[in-house]
This record gives sequence, structure tokens and C-alpha cells, in this order.
Amino acid sequence: MTDIVHVPLDNAAEAAEAALTAHGCSAEHAAATGRSIVTAEAEGNHAVGFLHLIDYCEALDAGRVAGRAEPLIDHPSKVALRVDAQQGFPHLGADLARDDLAAAAHRSGIAIMALRNGYSCGALGYFARRLAEEHALAAIVAANAGPAVMPASGGRTPVFCTNPLAFGLPWPGEGALVIDQSSAASAIVEIRKAAAEGRKLPEGWALGPDGAPTTDPATALAGTLLPFGGARGSNIALMVELLAAGLTGGNWSAVAPAFNAGSASPGVGLLIIAIDPRVTGGDDFVRHIADFAEILAADPGVHLPGVARGHQAKASATHGIEIDAALWQRICALA
Amino acid sequence: MTDIVHVPLDNAAEAAEAALTAHGCSAEHAAATGRSIVTAEAEGNHAVGFLHLIDYCEALDAGRVAGRAEPLIDHPSKVALRVDAQQGFPHLGADLARDDLAAAAHRSGIAIMALRNGYSCGALGYFARRLAEEHALAAIVAANAGPAVMPASGGRTPVFCTNPLAFGLPWPGEGALVIDQSSAASAIVEIRKAAAEGRKLPEGWALGPDGAPTTDPATALAGTLLPFGGARGSNIALMVELLAAGLTGGNWSAVAPAFNAGSASPGVGLLIIAIDPRVTGGDDFVRHIADFAEILAADPGVHLPGVARGHQAKASATHGIEIDAALWQRICALA
Repeated sequence: MTDIVHVPLDNAAEAAEAALTAHGCSAEHAAATGRSIVTAEAEGNHAVGFLHLIDYCEALDAGRVAGRAEPLIDHPSKVALRVDAQQGFPHLGADLARDDLAAAAHRSGIAIMALRNGYSCGALGYFARRLAEEHALAAIVAANAGPAVMPASGGRTPVFCTNPLAFGLPWPGEGALVIDQSSAASAIVEIRKAAAEGRKLPEGWALGPDGAPTTDPATALAGTLLPFGGARGSNIALMVELLAAGLTGGNWSAVAPAFNAGSASPGVGLLIIAIDPRVTGGDDFVRHIADFAEILAADPGVHLPGVARGHQAKASATHGIEIDAALWQRICALA
Repeated sequence: MTDIVHVPLDNAAEAAEAALTAHGCSAEHAAATGRSIVTAEAEGNHAVGFLHLIDYCEALDAGRVAGRAEPLIDHPSKVALRVDAQQGFPHLGADLARDDLAAAAHRSGIAIMALRNGYSCGALGYFARRLAEEHALAAIVAANAGPAVMPASGGRTPVFCTNPLAFGLPWPGEGALVIDQSSAASAIVEIRKAAAEGRKLPEGWALGPDGAPTTDPATALAGTLLPFGGARGSNIALMVELLAAGLTGGNWSAVAPAFNAGSASPGVGLLIIAIDPRVTGGDDFVRHIADFAEILAADPGVHLPGVARGHQAKASATHGIEIDAALWQRICALA
């Protein structure tokens, strides 16, 4: 049986910050990046919680991310912010831009932040949820990363990373509805698990090294992942790449150094579009959304994305984060 | 064998306008809506070309769309346009807003048009392509419609229409890359075809009337379509609904009158976000995109969405539109 410890959020945040600082982050970076790690962990989104903090510390040790980078922020207009993350974690730049981004969206209805030269950003929904919960804004968020692991529609050579897309909106009775999803049909870990258990993969998950579709996990591990949902999902991965790398000037996933190997920085992009629904939809936006929430609630099977994570985050704020004792020891040791 | 006629674009446009005018459109609506029909036909996108013009004329006859509606345009800020289509076709309002939208995006980097109370909008890529080809802008475009034909993730009751999403970007050597896709796994016509041919459906296309997944086309026709790509595709359909109806104040698909039956107007939404990549990504945007175009071109299988349609449109401009003779006669008779 796995030992579980309950760690209060403050202690979790201190540990994350201490680990990042010990591995070379400035206090500002440690606070900003640590917050995203602890938020993911509090939401039960473990893959980008403390487990990912280990990746971050390794990246700092290897010089793949500049722990003391000072983001450069430039305002080409009243509603546009360009952030050069200077090869650091993207969280600090996004945090420094956030108040201006939100104020611009409130004032003008829409605003955009285009961040380039960043390390990969972990939980993407984090950025959408904060804009929805703390600023009552809708948000579209796109990120890319290196290395590329998926081909474009019809292709064989990987040109996209798992290219996540997030969307957030304030939601009646809940903090926010938050879509936060990879553009891949599966994760590498799921394919490794199928290989270990001797199971076939569902169709549409992977290509073998010859570029042919495969359901054999070993062949898939030597080949490439595929986007979810066939050609339409491939187009979503492409749209995310064009938003995140194309519109920011960030490195294309196809040429970006890996987030988890080597000593070069990925230098990728993060795009955030923030929209004030009261400006675009009018003052009765809250009632309008409440109508839709009622329609959805009438169908008991409906899954509202991100709502359970919001509840989990509240529970964690009260009861602390549930974490595997061995992992917690490892995190404390990182500091 | 089917007889094919070649109709010059000008004649096709005249016929479309004449048909719309004969069925009650003002000259302005006939020109704006006719242009979208003929553009779709010229691109080889027949389902939303002249075939759809027949739907439009029927909707005018039945009073489902106000052919002489005067769109109300309001500027809540320098980068936001709200359009009340007044139960007319959305094309005229979008056309009237387009120059302001494009100018705002060029000036500020991003701008938004939120249209409500519109009829359904046919080819959605049309709006993205024009912004990309004629204004060198990136565009995200979302639309909803009535009736609802797909449930939300985990649900059984239809709450989304096929909810298309479009994305356009100027593309080196081509006018534009244009993603234009339904959020449904299939179209009703494909299910009818499978039923006629006695074929099973792929998994993930439909639910039966009991809410259980089905691969039997007859059961599917009595039930509901499903979004593409499982839960992730359902989230895309949800995002489109929230963008198109939520942020505009347009009717939710779940309560919108049908575009193809009855006498009430759908009153749905169309959202366009226009982005100037030179503002968000810097002056080397053209070179940056050219780098990616080269990466994609190195993999000969890659399908670039919307590029073939752009070529077809050019061919149609030179050689005219290829159209089934019987359909062309029907279109001429509509006028």
C-alpha cells in the first residue's frame, strides 16, 4: 500500500519554491512557477504537479531553462502584450502581464498576450482558470513545446508536440468551466502501460516507424503519437501550433529543443486571448450563461470540464494536498 | 451520366443574387449572402454552395429569416464590434463590420466581432479566408445553429448543432491556410448513405434513442450524432457553443429554432476574432511562417487544410464553376 500524506497548501507552496530556488530560480520565478505546480497538485492534476517539478529542477540543473531570466514585456498596443521570456519559465512573464491583460480585456472587450522564448508551461488550464475565476474573463490559451511527437494530417514526421489547448469561462455556481486538453489521442505513459500489460492500442493512437498506423504498443513507441480525432483533431493540433508558435514568434515544435533532454532551451510560445463577455455579449451575460448551465444540468450524464478540478482545489485548500509520501520526501529533498 | 455545365463566376453570382432577391432579400443581403454561396461553390464546397441556396430561399419563403433586416452595429470599444443581425442572414452584418474589424486588428493586434440574432451562416471558412487573404490577418471563427443534434460529453440530449470552427492564416505561396470543420464526427447525409447501403457506422459516430452508442445507421437516425474525437471533440463543440452563442448573446443551439423547419428565426451567433500576427509576433512573421511551411512541405503526405479549396477557387475564376446541369436549372428557376 502506498503511504499518503496530507500537506497543507502553504507548506506545499514553500516546498515547491524552495526546490526551484535551490536549483537556481530567482525568488520571482520560484513563486510564479511554484504556484502553477501547487495549483495543479491541489486540483488533482498530478502529471503537471509535483512530478513535473522534478522535471523543472532537472531542466534547471541541465541549463535548459534560465532560472533568473528577466522577462521583457512590450506593449505594441493597449490590448496587446508581447512577452520575451528570455528562455525562462513562462509563468513569471504571464504573471507580470496578467493585470494589464485583464484590465485591457475589461476596458476593450478583448486583449492578447503573446509569449515567446519560454520553457514549456505545464498545466495550461491554470492560465485560463485564473482569468475566469479572478477576472471574470473568458480565455483561449494555446501552447506548444519541444520535442515534436505527432505528425500533421497525412504526414509521418513529427511536427507537433502534444499541443494543449485551454478555454475558460466563469460558470454559475462554480468558479469556472475550464477545458484543458492535449491535442494527442493518448499520452506516452498510456502506450507504455499498454506495452507492459500486453494490450493492443485503440486505432488512431499511433504510427509505427514506417509511418503506417499501428495498434502494437512496441511499434508505436518506436514511431509517433497521433492527434486525437483523426483529421479534425490534427487540425486542432495545427491551429494550436500556429497560435502558440506562429503568432508569438516562438520556436516551432519541430525545431524546438526538448523540454526534457539536452542543455538547450525549448524557446517555445504561449498565447492567451482574454475576452470580457459583458462587452461582447452584453450585460445579461450572467443570466445567458445560467440558462445554458440549466440546460446542461437537466442531462445528468453531462461532464462539465474543469469543474471537478475546481472542487478538488477547494477541498485541498481545506484539507491539504494528498500526496504519495515517497514523492513528498523527494520534493522536500529537492529543496 | 450527369450533365455538367460551366458557369462563369459573374453569372453564378447574378443567379444567386437574383434568387435571393426573388425570395425577399434586399439588394444588400442578396449581394452579401450570394457572395458566400458562390465562393463556396467556386471552392468546390458544394454542400454550402448552390444546394444551400435552396435552403436559404425556402427559409425566406417560410419567414425563418428576415430578408430585409438592417443589422445594428455597435462599437463598445475600438476593438470590439457587436452586431445584432435582426434575424437576417449574418453575412451582411459581418460584411458591414469587416473593414472596421480588420482596421482595428491592424492597429491594435486583435479585434473581435460578436454577432447575434442571425440565421445560420453556411460556409464558416469564408469569413476566415477573407480576413487572411484580403487583410493578412489570422482569424478564429465560431458559429452555432439550431436545431441541436449532438449531446455534450457524457450526455444524451442534443445541446449542440454541428458547431463549426474555422481558423485562417495567410500562407506563403498560397492565399491562406484555412481550417473549416464541423465539430461532429459525421454528417447526417453520411449516416443516411450508410443506411441506404446497409453498412455499419464506425464507433463514436452516434447514439441511439436510448442514449446508448450505436453502429446501426437506422438506430442512429432515430438518435443523435456525436462530436468527433470522443471527449476532446465534445469539448471543442462546447467551446464553439460558448464562443458563438455564449459570448455573443445568440440563442443556444439547444433552444434555437431550426434553420430548416418552421417559421421562427434561429437567432444564433457568429464570433470572429481577428489577429494581426505582425503585431503579436513581430515583423519577421512572414519568414517565421515560411520556415514552418518548409518543414511541412518536407513531408510529402501532409495535407494543408483549405489550400486545395483556394486552388479550386482560382480555377473557377478562370474556367467558371462546374455545376450539375439540373441543379443549375433549379437555381435559375429560383430567380
